[in-house]
Amino acid sequence: MSGYGGGELLHLIAGHPSFELAYVAGESSAGQTLAQRFPWLGGREEGGLVIAPFEPQKLPALELLFVSLPTGKSRDPLARVAEKVKIVDVGGDHRFVDGWTYGLTELPGQRARIARAARLANPGCYPAAALLALAPLVKERLIEPEGIVIDAKSGVTGAGRGGASAFGYAETNEDLFAYGLAAHAHVPEIEAALAQIGGAKASVAFTPHLVPMSRGLLATCYARPRDGVASEQLHEAAAALYANEPFVRLTQAQAGAGPHTGWATGSNLAFLSYAINARTGLVIALGAIDNLGKGAAGQALQNANLMTGQHETAGLKGLPVRP
Amino acid sequence: MSGYGGGELLHLIAGHPSFELAYVAGESSAGQTLAQRFPWLGGREEGGLVIAPFEPQKLPALELLFVSLPTGKSRDPLARVAEKVKIVDVGGDHRFVDGWTYGLTELPGQRARIARAARLANPGCYPAAALLALAPLVKERLIEPEGIVIDAKSGVTGAGRGGASAFGYAETNEDLFAYGLAAHAHVPEIEAALAQIGGAKASVAFTPHLVPMSRGLLATCYARPRDGVASEQLHEAAAALYANEPFVRLTQAQAGAGPHTGWATGSNLAFLSYAINARTGLVIALGAIDNLGKGAAGQALQNANLMTGQHETAGLKGLPVRP
Amino acid sequence: MSGYGGGELLHLIAGHPSFELAYVAGESSAGQTLAQRFPWLGGREEGGLVIAPFEPQKLPALELLFVSLPTGKSRDPLARVAEKVKIVDVGGDHRFVDGWTYGLTELPGQRARIARAARLANPGCYPAAALLALAPLVKERLIEPEGIVIDAKSGVTGAGRGGASAFGYAETNEDLFAYGLAAHAHVPEIEAALAQIGGAKASVAFTPHLVPMSRGLLATCYARPRDGVASEQLHEAAAALYANEPFVRLTQAQAGAGPHTGWATGSNLAFLSYAINARTGLVIALGAIDNLGKGAAGQALQNANLMTGQHETAGLKGLPVRP
Amino acid sequence: MSGYGGGELLHLIAGHPSFELAYVAGESSAGQTLAQRFPWLGGREEGGLVIAPFEPQKLPALELLFVSLPTGKSRDPLARVAEKVKIVDVGGDHRFVDGWTYGLTELPGQRARIARAARLANPGCYPAAALLALAPLVKERLIEPEGIVIDAKSGVTGAGRGGASAFGYAETNEDLFAYGLAAHAHVPEIEAALAQIGGAKASVAFTPHLVPMSRGLLATCYARPRDGVASEQLHEAAAALYANEPFVRLTQAQAGAGPHTGWATGSNLAFLSYAINARTGLVIALGAIDNLGKGAAGQALQNANLMTGQHETAGLKGLPVRP
Repeated sequence: MSGYGGGELLHLIAGHPSFELAYVAGESSAGQTLAQRFPWLGGREEGGLVIAPFEPQKLPALELLFVSLPTGKSRDPLARVAEKVKIVDVGGDHRFVDGWTYGLTELPGQRARIARAARLANPGCYPAAALLALAPLVKERLIEPEGIVIDAKSGVTGAGRGGASAFGYAETNEDLFAYGLAAHAHVPEIEAALAQIGGAKASVAFTPHLVPMSRGLLATCYARPRDGVASEQLHEAAAALYANEPFVRLTQAQAGAGPHTGWATGSNLAFLSYAINARTGLVIALGAIDNLGKGAAGQALQNANLMTGQHETAGLKGLPVRP
Repeated sequence: MSGYGGGELLHLIAGHPSFELAYVAGESSAGQTLAQRFPWLGGREEGGLVIAPFEPQKLPALELLFVSLPTGKSRDPLARVAEKVKIVDVGGDHRFVDGWTYGLTELPGQRARIARAARLANPGCYPAAALLALAPLVKERLIEPEGIVIDAKSGVTGAGRGGASAFGYAETNEDLFAYGLAAHAHVPEIEAALAQIGGAKASVAFTPHLVPMSRGLLATCYARPRDGVASEQLHEAAAALYANEPFVRLTQAQAGAGPHTGWATGSNLAFLSYAINARTGLVIALGAIDNLGKGAAGQALQNANLMTGQHETAGLKGLPVRP
Repeated sequence: MSGYGGGELLHLIAGHPSFELAYVAGESSAGQTLAQRFPWLGGREEGGLVIAPFEPQKLPALELLFVSLPTGKSRDPLARVAEKVKIVDVGGDHRFVDGWTYGLTELPGQRARIARAARLANPGCYPAAALLALAPLVKERLIEPEGIVIDAKSGVTGAGRGGASAFGYAETNEDLFAYGLAAHAHVPEIEAALAQIGGAKASVAFTPHLVPMSRGLLATCYARPRDGVASEQLHEAAAALYANEPFVRLTQAQAGAGPHTGWATGSNLAFLSYAINARTGLVIALGAIDNLGKGAAGQALQNANLMTGQHETAGLKGLPVRP
Repeated sequence: MSGYGGGELLHLIAGHPSFELAYVAGESSAGQTLAQRFPWLGGREEGGLVIAPFEPQKLPALELLFVSLPTGKSRDPLARVAEKVKIVDVGGDHRFVDGWTYGLTELPGQRARIARAARLANPGCYPAAALLALAPLVKERLIEPEGIVIDAKSGVTGAGRGGASAFGYAETNEDLFAYGLAAHAHVPEIEAALAQIGGAKASVAFTPHLVPMSRGLLATCYARPRDGVASEQLHEAAAALYANEPFVRLTQAQAGAGPHTGWATGSNLAFLSYAINARTGLVIALGAIDNLGKGAAGQALQNANLMTGQHETAGLKGLPVRP
């Protein structure tokens, strides 16, 4: 477990009322204590834990294992983990793979599946934001599922490769650009989930952008409405689907502004907003999250809570750190 | 002249080989010298100039006047400026208004009109980026002019109201949001210019976003291609239209990434890139500028050069400050 | 209660295991619900609370009141609050004022006084960092208490005036400067506290700097050692004074680097480090905190816990949000 | 020539009225054109230049060579460069080394030496700011040259190692720390220069800090005044020494604030300010520069102008990019 998502998970687990941190593995940091790697853990019990090399066949007795390995590197090792150890894979290798449950809790029907799962694939950060925004519209057939535009913007911890410091400060500061124009690993995940929700083929033009901030992810989605769909129906569909969701907040545009990514920083919250563009009739659906919260570690812990019979919000009640 | 655009213009004029700064007016700063307002002008000739209150009927002998007044505040005063004084209005009140020439130099046919103009309306920062990216496609009828999506992202100096410090550091840092969802002043400007270029009604869904950076603006545009349009045609149309343009650069996506706003910081450059999205067939056109350069003061000086018979690039050859 | 410190306190109280938020007052936001002012509180019980105008003589039944009013504005109103309501004043008007206890918990002898206090003056953010770093050295007479240099650096939420957005993004970003060169309200507070700890007159040259970040405060302190003082004694004095402190962490310089402000972001932690400069023999003491945590709201809650018989760390166990 | 300083030099040379860029060498980027490495150079003559591997014995006919190699790597190769090629070494290997002239132009007596030099060692960025601030005080013996405290703060391009992206965005953003506590390569350079100016041994406690910004460097210097020195004498000494300097600006504290690093961004300017601290009597001298301007590439070009008989300000008249 390394990288930004791993660090965030450690914090969440350390603050969890029931979970106990029994084992931490990492490659480059193996042999260090957690407190050496994360100085703020000094003086806490967790800080004394020594980071082990990851040996899937020699795990201690664990109820559940969180894994976040680089893309393409987790299929083999995870196949060797004992069956009785439940797994939440925060990485991308097991999404929509047989034998693994897709773990975006708030999607229709998903919560019950997650509670029964022993092998769980956590969603990507971009799909988490886009799917939460689009799911009610696709489910209620308010929009055409083909030709959806997802213009997404993320802070650098979401765009990182394997959690490494891929982006230098001086290069990233005061800069902004689109990437993944040719292809992006999250597209099949988004299309598969939308197809499952709506029961029809979906296609998306997905353009991620790197924004000079550490955390925060906004998906601005554009879709063609089905005939006669009115603005209120969009909001109502979301209100119905997410009526009792502890982590989803619907917001009305104030002075024409959508939800801020900063409202979610450090929390597991997702903020959604809907509008119909007056000039073109296009539907605009906005989803704002912390890419390390609902986009990674927060969602992972939410899933783990369900998989182990904990209260779904245990350890996740924290409010955003804002400003 | 106040605000960020005004400050940038002062810098450009101070570095211009032929222009001489003869008069500066401002409201809140009237009575100060330029060096008191801008400490880095201390020790330079311009620094001693005293900021006057703006009295349009009592101007000194000027060849050309740059104006940047808050929206809605410039029609009356500018109507009182003597006819022999040429005007470049950096504000928004005279765009597509009778008697005023729209001043985005690189649009088809525009350069010659600008050279003859005595009353010039400088484009908005968002339109500058979006129109440069879309103009070749609309001109060559490669895309449908209706239903275009323009998802735009700007640093705070572009989103400012009248140049004031509308955005606090702690609120803006580590945050991102969409605004103008209901309506935005730049939409009619973009649609009017596109209609003029393409000879057909155009409609756009325009969603601006505020990004935590001081400068930089990226327009990510999505449009439906006309039947049979291929990816190369997009790039070729832009290459043809901008073949001899000193400030426009076409870039090919490297590793799937588009142009960076940071490539333009402090300069009058515009970077454009084109792609066809494989999943949906949609055209993606990207335009990156410095909102205070090509999006405001740089474009204004380029226009002033043309209007006064200077070389178009005079005072505008500076390279970006990067990083 | 308004401003950044007030917002942070709301979050901490909302997450406190025993405290209940019964009353919130504010000037500019009176009449709004908390959820209107802080959108992330939507959907929570606290979010429905209506912000009242502050009327000190008409308070509901409260055990304890947190107050953060602009400098010079709290003496009169707080004098009218009923005696049975305990007060923690996060503002600056009651520090080292008769009848009020100074509330930096970890200073020698202070914890017991705080537990007995009904009127508590919370320390300033700069003094919190500097005093935690200097207290052990002054107490053990390892440094001369006169002529101490405190070169301090703060993010903008610490330098704010009354919590308002005093600092624009574009002006603050990519900029750094020293202020308060003539005088600063925190100097008498620091000198008074040092004199109390060391039993001798203290004098400090205090230079605060504004740094482009939202949170974080570092005090770099330089002092002349008493004769024969060795580097180890500095660390040992701090280790002895803070042996059982839950929020203070001593760090050894790794590769010559001191503690990072980012290690404390969003938490109540303080990180301290000590060195003797080889070229001049000067002692260097470093203190890093979150100015809204240990420098304001975190310290305020720690004090309130003591004043009301709660466990001192209740509601303050959160780890930093990092990165 | 690689790294941030090298990139900045390329920009300055490209804008120089007389210099012609004839040769560029680099290690990791050898074989690329400049336009491939720096996309904004596309479409300019310089952009077509191919980056060569650095072979000191096979240089083309050059009048002057700028070099910026990693510390410890330039002595051998530069010894092999033909004598008739003048060298400006922006790196640290030849400062206060026999046969090399130290190139901080504004120091007493230095300008004439530089004009005669064929081997020039450019100052470090921290020394440039600190020495400009301290030189007049040491020269006029207004302060004690021993026990000076230099508390310096720099953006990441100044603290970079060899120009590489040593600092990740997510790690650097919202963070601040002191480094080099044990030793820093710039200390001997500062002490040697101060001793030369003042004719007496100097010693400094130098503490650099890394600040989350790309550019900008502030040196806050504290020194003991000689007996009877008054505040005005500090300013007068600087005014006398820098009376005709085109790049040095003295500023008076406004509302107690010193010069901003942002006033220098992208320029070769240096801003200085002086005060006496009322509580301790200590002298405070402040120096603010752009670490890539006066702290590296700007100073290097200024030296090259002098060494080749150009006007000293040629290519350096640019105003800061602000905000």
